[in-house]
Formats: sequence, C-alpha cells, structure tokens
Amino acid sequence: MTWSKTEKTVARKAFDEAYRKECEVLTEKVRTMAAQISEPQDLWRIQDLLEEQRRSTDDKYDYRYSVLIFVFARLIREGWLSADDLAGLAQEKLDEINHLASRQW
Amino acid sequence: MTWSKTEKTVARKAFDEAYRKECEVLTEKVRTMAAQISEPQDLWRIQDLLEEQRRSTDDKYDYRYSVLIFVFARLIREGWLSADDLAGLAQEKLDEINHLASRQW
Repeated sequence: MTWSKTEKTVARKAFDEAYRKECEVLTEKVRTMAAQISEPQDLWRIQDLLEEQRRSTDDKYDYRYSVLIFVFARLIREGWLSADDLAGLAQEKLDEINHLASRQW
Repeated sequence: MTWSKTEKTVARKAFDEAYRKECEVLTEKVRTMAAQISEPQDLWRIQDLLEEQRRSTDDKYDYRYSVLIFVFARLIREGWLSADDLAGLAQEKLDEINHLASRQW
C-alpha cells in the first residue's frame, strides 16, 4: 500500500493524537496512585505499571507504513482512535482497518 | 559478631525507619514529578527514577547480621540514620559503624 502526502498527514496526526491520549490517561492513573502511596510497595506498583505501559506503547506505536494499517486497527479496537480520526485515508485503507478492528483477537 | 536480643530489636527498628524515611523522600519526589508531567517523556523519567531507586534500595537494605554493620555505616553516611538511632548496640559495633561511615568511598 502506498500513502499519499495527504494520507501521511492524516495518519501522523491520528497516530500522535492516540499516543497523547493514551499517555494522558496513564498520567492521571500515575497521579492518583502517587497521591495514594501509603507504603513502599505502592511505589513499586507505580514502577510496575509504568514499565508495562512503556513496553506496551513502545510495541504498539510503530509508525512504519508497512504496519500502520494494523496499528490503526488496534488503536480503534482499544478506543484510542475513532474512525473519524482517520477521515482522509483512501477507502481501501479504511475498509481494511475497520475489518481488522472488528476481528476477534 | 553476635547480636543480642536487645541489639536485634534496635537494629530492626533503625533499619525499618531508614527504609521508611528513604521511601518517604522518594514518594515526595514522585508526587512532584507526577504533578509536573507535561509530555510522555516525563512519565518514563518517573519510571527510570523508580527503577533505579528500587534496584538501589533492594541492594542497600540487606538485613543479614553478617553485613548489617556495613549497611548501617552506609545509611549513616547517606543521612538516613544518625548515630542516635543505633543507641543500644554494643560499643564495639558502634565504633566499627562510625569508623566505616567516616571512610572515603
């Protein structure tokens, strides 16, 4: 699949926005956990969460055009993107993304 | 070196207190950093700090009587314990701890 200049702009924006949203939710979670620390173990729980999320986002947010269809499908499935965020991509790509997003995993 | 029952009580209390203090300082640092998160990288900075501190405290807080003199010397050197916290240990142990604490590392 080739990506036109317009599509690349749409894709980049949607990708960055999803990452930003996911990090915002994580930020709120970390702030809540930090406010509630009452014993050392609570500190290490924050570390465990951050480690897991860092690994997960590093793995998930892979901006290579060869895998972007799969990345977007996953982000829609997980609720970080809506189909509207991808308006501007070719119909063929949108169909493929929606098809993948609705599959059972 | 042998540890009497009284010394073991003093040692345990001082050890736990130092760990608690160190975790409290770390908690304050994490809360401040969490409040100031403004970009994803700030989240991973918290993880880096926690990872480093967890490794460091796991290594430092080693409650084996065979190494406790060295542990207390380090905690005094780093300011997590004062000599007063160890009142009740045999003079021989206190001398050794103070001697080790004042060495250059």
